[in-house]
Amino acid sequence: MKNFRHQHQRPKKNTLVVGRSAIVEAFKTGKQLDRIYMQTAVHGNLIDDIKILAEQNSVPINKVPAEKLNSFNVFNHEGCIANFKIQYQNLQDVISLIVENGEVPLFIILDGITDIRNIGAIARSAFCFGVNAIVIPDKGVGSLNEDAILTSAGALEKIAVCRVNSLMKAVDELHLNGVKVFASEMKAEKKVYDLNFAEPCAIIMGGEEHGVYPALMKICDEQFQIPMPGDFESLNVSVATGVILYEASKQRIQS
Amino acid sequence: MKNFRHQHQRPKKNTLVVGRSAIVEAFKTGKQLDRIYMQTAVHGNLIDDIKILAEQNSVPINKVPAEKLNSFNVFNHEGCIANFKIQYQNLQDVISLIVENGEVPLFIILDGITDIRNIGAIARSAFCFGVNAIVIPDKGVGSLNEDAILTSAGALEKIAVCRVNSLMKAVDELHLNGVKVFASEMKAEKKVYDLNFAEPCAIIMGGEEHGVYPALMKICDEQFQIPMPGDFESLNVSVATGVILYEASKQRIQS
Repeated sequence: MKNFRHQHQRPKKNTLVVGRSAIVEAFKTGKQLDRIYMQTAVHGNLIDDIKILAEQNSVPINKVPAEKLNSFNVFNHEGCIANFKIQYQNLQDVISLIVENGEVPLFIILDGITDIRNIGAIARSAFCFGVNAIVIPDKGVGSLNEDAILTSAGALEKIAVCRVNSLMKAVDELHLNGVKVFASEMKAEKKVYDLNFAEPCAIIMGGEEHGVYPALMKICDEQFQIPMPGDFESLNVSVATGVILYEASKQRIQS
Repeated sequence: MKNFRHQHQRPKKNTLVVGRSAIVEAFKTGKQLDRIYMQTAVHGNLIDDIKILAEQNSVPINKVPAEKLNSFNVFNHEGCIANFKIQYQNLQDVISLIVENGEVPLFIILDGITDIRNIGAIARSAFCFGVNAIVIPDKGVGSLNEDAILTSAGALEKIAVCRVNSLMKAVDELHLNGVKVFASEMKAEKKVYDLNFAEPCAIIMGGEEHGVYPALMKICDEQFQIPMPGDFESLNVSVATGVILYEASKQRIQS
């Protein structure tokens, strides 16, 4: 009777490379690693190998106390844990691939969302609801680090992330590919369920402080709000994104 | 063009009592305080008054460095910040009051959700979507502390919280009052949008590790799932709650 779907999952182990020989193997098979967490004062041949391979591949090593490694909740880490590097993808490549696969594009664009834990939580919902890619600007957002990956329960390593130079240009590119762009805005007349999410579309979520950038809002195709009985109240941005994606996904299932 | 609704709000200042004279005033006007954060090595007549009043009213004082007080993001704290105590309410009283007011009850029951930040995030969504009360067990859940209140953006101090000895008895009490009880369960046949949330109802959300307790699941009126295109994926429990409450609220607006 376990409620697997709604329960809060621990980070999936396959987002991490755990143990000395596994890390050496990851390097030798050409896996892209982001960072290695190495317990202070560990020694051995494999440790020496890891240090050499890390230097050759420009992967930083963080020397950490055992408690840090234990906090990953994995067994037999042997004093070493690495995480995979997030591979950013080209937006046009992603669009082309989706269309080739006969899928209907669904994107999330994050404008000014800087809280790494919110980005992780959004990625998790995005993966659950079948979003094809998350688009983030290359400025203002910290690197999608371990915290983001843990909060996303591994989703950030399974979903395409497009890091773009300009969100304005990204919206232009989406438009050229026939993708509609919707933005959430409190004073919008349309409700989220009035939109047609069954067509190719991208949803812009605004940042914690300033909402969607006005120039970006102007070039959107639709603005919408999530109706709520209490006025002047606000949902957390990751909950709001979950709600919108639920509505989009439901329309797609039923269409 | 600010997107106020979806933005992440700072904690509302009215959940805190800020500054020396404000805290003395709060005591003198009979406000229930949970805890006082006092900067180490502050002195003065008002500080002495606060110490006496705190002892008389059994309110604990935490001696903290200035950084802790600054982290509340309020100005002129004068080395002292207090927070209001969450007043737990009696479930039957809450039900009676709702019915007297001519409202249709909507409750959230949290079974085994122990992460204080998740509880805070759930309270925030619950307040936005017009939930009347949150029901939590008095065992297993830590006290709803400052972290929970901050995560809830103050909602925990505006929404009724019923802390009950037994969730089984709470469900019985809801049933006796004509309130249906729905539980989320991954393998349920019904989808969340197949339920009728326009009637008096309570929604049980299961915990991060074990889901809804089997005996509790048995006495529920309906089980439902949130449909998602990706199998075996799980939403964060606070996002899942937001999605369910959106569906409930939408049905109530449209009914």
